[in-house]
Amino acid sequence: MTQKLAGGCLFAQSGGPTSVINASAYGVIKTSLETPEITHVYGASHGIMGILGDTLYDLGKEDPQELSLLLNTPSSALGSCRYKIKDRSDLDRLYEVFQKHNIRYFFYNGGNDSMDTCLKVDDYLHEVGYECRVIGVPKTIDNDLDGTDHCPGYGSAAKYIATTVAEVYHDSIVYDTGTITIIEIMGRNAGWLTGASALAELSGAPPDLIYLPEIPFDMGYFLYKTESMYKAKNNCLVAVSEGIRYPGGSLVSDAKPSATDGFGHAQLGGLAATLSDIVKQRTGAKVRGIELSLLQRCGAHLASQTDIDEAFLAGKSAVECAVAGETGKMVAFEREQGSGGGNNGGSGNIGESGSVNTGNTAAIDAAANTGATAIGTGQYKCNVVLRPLAICANSEKTVPREWINETGTYVTQDFIDYALPLIQGENTRALENGLPRFAQLKKELVT
Amino acid sequence: MTQKLAGGCLFAQSGGPTSVINASAYGVIKTSLETPEITHVYGASHGIMGILGDTLYDLGKEDPQELSLLLNTPSSALGSCRYKIKDRSDLDRLYEVFQKHNIRYFFYNGGNDSMDTCLKVDDYLHEVGYECRVIGVPKTIDNDLDGTDHCPGYGSAAKYIATTVAEVYHDSIVYDTGTITIIEIMGRNAGWLTGASALAELSGAPPDLIYLPEIPFDMGYFLYKTESMYKAKNNCLVAVSEGIRYPGGSLVSDAKPSATDGFGHAQLGGLAATLSDIVKQRTGAKVRGIELSLLQRCGAHLASQTDIDEAFLAGKSAVECAVAGETGKMVAFEREQGSGGGNNGGSGNIGESGSVNTGNTAAIDAAANTGATAIGTGQYKCNVVLRPLAICANSEKTVPREWINETGTYVTQDFIDYALPLIQGENTRALENGLPRFAQLKKELVT
Repeated sequence: MTQKLAGGCLFAQSGGPTSVINASAYGVIKTSLETPEITHVYGASHGIMGILGDTLYDLGKEDPQELSLLLNTPSSALGSCRYKIKDRSDLDRLYEVFQKHNIRYFFYNGGNDSMDTCLKVDDYLHEVGYECRVIGVPKTIDNDLDGTDHCPGYGSAAKYIATTVAEVYHDSIVYDTGTITIIEIMGRNAGWLTGASALAELSGAPPDLIYLPEIPFDMGYFLYKTESMYKAKNNCLVAVSEGIRYPGGSLVSDAKPSATDGFGHAQLGGLAATLSDIVKQRTGAKVRGIELSLLQRCGAHLASQTDIDEAFLAGKSAVECAVAGETGKMVAFEREQGSGGGNNGGSGNIGESGSVNTGNTAAIDAAANTGATAIGTGQYKCNVVLRPLAICANSEKTVPREWINETGTYVTQDFIDYALPLIQGENTRALENGLPRFAQLKKELVT
Repeated sequence: MTQKLAGGCLFAQSGGPTSVINASAYGVIKTSLETPEITHVYGASHGIMGILGDTLYDLGKEDPQELSLLLNTPSSALGSCRYKIKDRSDLDRLYEVFQKHNIRYFFYNGGNDSMDTCLKVDDYLHEVGYECRVIGVPKTIDNDLDGTDHCPGYGSAAKYIATTVAEVYHDSIVYDTGTITIIEIMGRNAGWLTGASALAELSGAPPDLIYLPEIPFDMGYFLYKTESMYKAKNNCLVAVSEGIRYPGGSLVSDAKPSATDGFGHAQLGGLAATLSDIVKQRTGAKVRGIELSLLQRCGAHLASQTDIDEAFLAGKSAVECAVAGETGKMVAFEREQGSGGGNNGGSGNIGESGSVNTGNTAAIDAAANTGATAIGTGQYKCNVVLRPLAICANSEKTVPREWINETGTYVTQDFIDYALPLIQGENTRALENGLPRFAQLKKELVT
């Protein structure tokens, strides 16, 4: 039996935002505020940067009603960063701030890089003998985190993409003159988001061709397929991942190598325009390139209620597990076999189950105040489990080859079965004047 | 008293699609099918092209349930075209087809150019002594049609733009490092859509600067304002119209003059990328350009229920007015004074009121099967009136100078008061598998 640990909780958000990252924040904050062992609940401004700079908000001073609006507020409400811990001096400083505020629970919400940060913090605190429970809360629209069936943020982005593709499909077929439309979707190395465009099938409005970064890109074959489809149908709708690369490894988008984000990734974009130009030259057709850009990661009005519920549950479970004694873990989802798609959870070791093992019903209960009335297809069920951070950090889960068709131009039914349950449920967001009513936090600084 | 006119009805859609153009289609089709004088209801494939080619669908053979789904199906369900009537031989051919199918009611759904087509058809048929009632049903996201307070299609695009800008605002402020975000919005010569970005104010997430095509663009001042705002706030969100031009008249987007659409307009796009490059060079900041592209005109999931109701009402009223004896007119909206924004209806003659003079309550009744429960702010009221086609054809209504601030960098409260009622009401669209269930018409050809 783990000893009870009393002290403060610190929560921080990292990496690119999602439509539901704040639902996880709400899960952490609400549960922490309700937990007797947790004496105070702080949030860091801009992730690790806010900890290093000791810029912390006292979340106990927020209005509970405003906090609940986090369930439907996109992007990182506390601010994010792309800072990676440089060296031991960063960890020393972090430790200083933890001691100063008696932080005994640390929850970090992010993707692969953030799980790496989590791991370093946990290792360090263990080494110096400072008792603090460190749990990673997953988030990424890219769905490329290892060790979990899927990741909060993905379902909503997938719903946004599938809905948008279905709408653009209808727009792209209206003229008698024909059109080729190329939609650029996020995903540097993993095609989960781009593959979600295939879900538009269920709306009777699918793309004709889908190009994922998992398959080396053959420009000649792409042009041949696109032109053939256009000639046969008078229209062609193509979904491409921003991260497609030639067999040699260079990006088709030909990103300027100088433009990089804080983690050293090439900053992508402009692929739709580039491909459109090439296709136009080849076919003479009217070609339109559309980049979904930030819209796919902040389109909270189309967030899937399943995703919101699960994001909330991930945050809630993180606190419950930490209080129960866990540390150095990431909250993950494990899909029950035969429940809407194969289990693509862990390519590494199977982590130990946490103290919370909760199916969908519990997820709905947990997020009852969201007004959710339906979740998934009725067959889908995911349980919360814990994975060692070491599994999840710095590895990327890509779409299995067998979920992509032989020619590398579409996804298979397995992919659709996997992704479809994740986009279920319409969220009931608060509105004022016909526009979203997002959370407005006071963000009172800790003095 | 006008004599009763029995015969067939022909409906066609033209120009760029909108989120609610099919709601007008449903208004025309449903009302025609219920009208005893109207013996058969045909739809043209791809607008005027389908008439010239005698490619007509028998809409009486459609399943009523599928037809009702048109209320929430974006883009032109019958297909559209950008064909302009060339000469008298086109009109001769059209007359031939009308005679062949005993068409006595012709409803054309489109923008300025389509109203011009309508006018030509009406004049011609009058000249040859063929009795046929011709009514234009307005549609354009651009809201640039003269003679009407606003145009079906605008409210939904405005709601999409305001919601998206509010979401992007939240995404654009998450990093401590700061960002400049430039959002490109449609509108060649009129800034109605770009101005709608200001509605995000009501969500607490407005753009900092708004550039409309009505004001000659000063690059130096734009760079100065953007940089100042960025330095002061660490962030800057700019909404720009695709149609902004330098004082000399050339487009800032520097569109290739060879790329034109069927009406001879320059095909725009790429402005966000162009401005982003320039701003990045000037400021050294992280700059992101986002083009809303087709999404703003097909994002039916965010269609305003007010707009859907009014689009339906426009179609329904067209049929009712034609049956009552009207011809050569366009259905228009006239806002009651003091009801949510100034009346910016007619810059030309005030047209005669039609036989239908219906406020919002009737609009809700008319579209009762949409499940609408709320419309506007409770103060807004628009009546259906008829305008002579001659007023509406080929003139563009732009944003009044006094609705733009002095420096040309934002819109005034008058603009917001005008646009806000038009985005009210959440639509209750049909869903299947968490995705839109759009109308699937059989489109049985008339033989």
